[in-house]
Amino acid sequence: MSTHSIASELMSPAAARTAVDAVISDFLDDRRRDSGQRELAGAVKLLEEFMVGGKRIRPILAVLGWQAAGGKGDETTVLRVAASLEMFHAFALIHDDIMDDSDTRRGRPTVHRILAGERGDDPSERYGIGGAVLLGDLAFAWSDDLLHTAALTSAQSAAVLPILGEMRTEVMLGQYLDLRATGELTDDIDATLTVNRYKTAKYTVERPLHIGAALAGADTPVLAACTAFALPLGEAFQLRDDLLGVYGEVRQTGKSRLDDLRAGKNTTLVASALRAGSTAQRTRLRTLIGDPDLDETGAEEIRAIFEATGARSAVERMIDDRYRQALRVLDTAPFTADAVTALKHLSATATRRTS
Amino acid sequence: MSTHSIASELMSPAAARTAVDAVISDFLDDRRRDSGQRELAGAVKLLEEFMVGGKRIRPILAVLGWQAAGGKGDETTVLRVAASLEMFHAFALIHDDIMDDSDTRRGRPTVHRILAGERGDDPSERYGIGGAVLLGDLAFAWSDDLLHTAALTSAQSAAVLPILGEMRTEVMLGQYLDLRATGELTDDIDATLTVNRYKTAKYTVERPLHIGAALAGADTPVLAACTAFALPLGEAFQLRDDLLGVYGEVRQTGKSRLDDLRAGKNTTLVASALRAGSTAQRTRLRTLIGDPDLDETGAEEIRAIFEATGARSAVERMIDDRYRQALRVLDTAPFTADAVTALKHLSATATRRTS
Repeated sequence: MSTHSIASELMSPAAARTAVDAVISDFLDDRRRDSGQRELAGAVKLLEEFMVGGKRIRPILAVLGWQAAGGKGDETTVLRVAASLEMFHAFALIHDDIMDDSDTRRGRPTVHRILAGERGDDPSERYGIGGAVLLGDLAFAWSDDLLHTAALTSAQSAAVLPILGEMRTEVMLGQYLDLRATGELTDDIDATLTVNRYKTAKYTVERPLHIGAALAGADTPVLAACTAFALPLGEAFQLRDDLLGVYGEVRQTGKSRLDDLRAGKNTTLVASALRAGSTAQRTRLRTLIGDPDLDETGAEEIRAIFEATGARSAVERMIDDRYRQALRVLDTAPFTADAVTALKHLSATATRRTS
Repeated sequence: MSTHSIASELMSPAAARTAVDAVISDFLDDRRRDSGQRELAGAVKLLEEFMVGGKRIRPILAVLGWQAAGGKGDETTVLRVAASLEMFHAFALIHDDIMDDSDTRRGRPTVHRILAGERGDDPSERYGIGGAVLLGDLAFAWSDDLLHTAALTSAQSAAVLPILGEMRTEVMLGQYLDLRATGELTDDIDATLTVNRYKTAKYTVERPLHIGAALAGADTPVLAACTAFALPLGEAFQLRDDLLGVYGEVRQTGKSRLDDLRAGKNTTLVASALRAGSTAQRTRLRTLIGDPDLDETGAEEIRAIFEATGARSAVERMIDDRYRQALRVLDTAPFTADAVTALKHLSATATRRTS
């Protein structure tokens, strides 16, 4: 009796996070112990260290989606699918850092930088990139292993796998648009929001919710409500990320405040400043943003232009509008009451965070 | 009646190849028509062009494994899984070319070179690498989409997915060992054969056979016979590849004869020459192999040392030994007779090929 009543209690986001981390940790321990793959021990360690410190927002949203659609009881399957999403995310970040040539992630050097540093000889940058491509690939393969051992029923597979496939293609499309736009600054705010939608809103919020909800057998109205909630929240999440990339405290974000600016990321913040700026301000932005040698003095000049043009406050307003829109959806969404409470809390955290 | 008798005829390797290509082509056409992902049209085209001209050895082996284990009748599922393997292979090659910094593949510039060339501005190499990482990732995701839409029964999923997971981790382990060994030449022939086993023998021959056989419900003796046949044949296949990388006709192989030498690939051929060479020969090999600016004159000097040390003929003998061993396994393997005939033919082709 008591076991049953514990199992039917809804798991809190904090508990979901801990449980997902345990699944990942057990999975990596198994890999470490696999005698046929002893040579991969270094890769397992690197991946494990990389995964420390993530916010686990996607796995938490998968669990919340499952709960929102009425999922309860044995969480084994949803937690394993959630862990698979986090492992996939490790893959996406490792490759993203290669594409952006980023120096730091989660307060540590990025994987390609760590690997390049381990190799003293000449083509060390090349070795770092090659090793990081491969570690990302391994995380992708292992996210599938987690998925394929999640004991999905046939109905769950039929509901979840197409959404998962969409999610993967969408995030890669977002990355592709982002890569193409990087270094070619435009003041096209809508274009930046399209990249945002694919790269973050759908990938980080909508699809994890959908996947969890589909595991619980969600019907079309529930999935549609997930979308209506997720897209504004996800856009707000990315807009906050754009601001943190320029204004965040490095000790809190774990990311350099220069990486996005040096990489020439065409964020909504940048597009807004280009749209509102004077000719002189636009010229300075185009000179400074994308300069791989940009220093803190140059970054301060950019920040001053973001303030002077009103771009920073415009993005803050965009975040607030989207946050409120997401909350309005929750007021009428056909979700379970506990899930609505948790999603409200998460919406506030995701849009007002400092890390 | 006549439809039934056609469906129960065993499909020839050539017919399997054509059928797998049709599955891939239809899949990519669907992607092209997907209005939500119109922006990916360029990526679809690039991937489609990349996939032209492959030998399709993995999908053919999957179909042969299925036939060897008694699979017959409706080939829809095995062909779709086979197409998934080929799509996965496109991913593996695109990333392999980044890691090896190769210039050409299948007679065309490699993906990262094509993309770098499309971009005129300064960090074009970086853009080429980023885009190629992403195109490879997309092929990986799409190989899963093919797999997840192959209509596997629960029994087939339970049999096939663990093998598929092993295959993916193994090839990445092989790549990792290869990457680590590249540029650090040793005369350790066994170490080169270990890389060969993971990177090629298991990935290219054993696992595709296993996957096809598992789809047909193969028992342990059939799977064990697949392994006993596949490992020597796969090693021979890679040893032939190593020779073709240095001695092949570019018009036939589609690969530069300088790429492997410039990248400092520690092949069995190189290790054999280091093992057998004089101090002077070893010094020359260590100077020339791995030099990114190696020219045809330097390559000729290396080839002369491979001849003089007997390394080339030693590798030819290793190929022949393994080819014969694979044939001996076929004499007693519990495979269907037609599959044995086809596997014998394929063994001869794979080890004696010129492309």
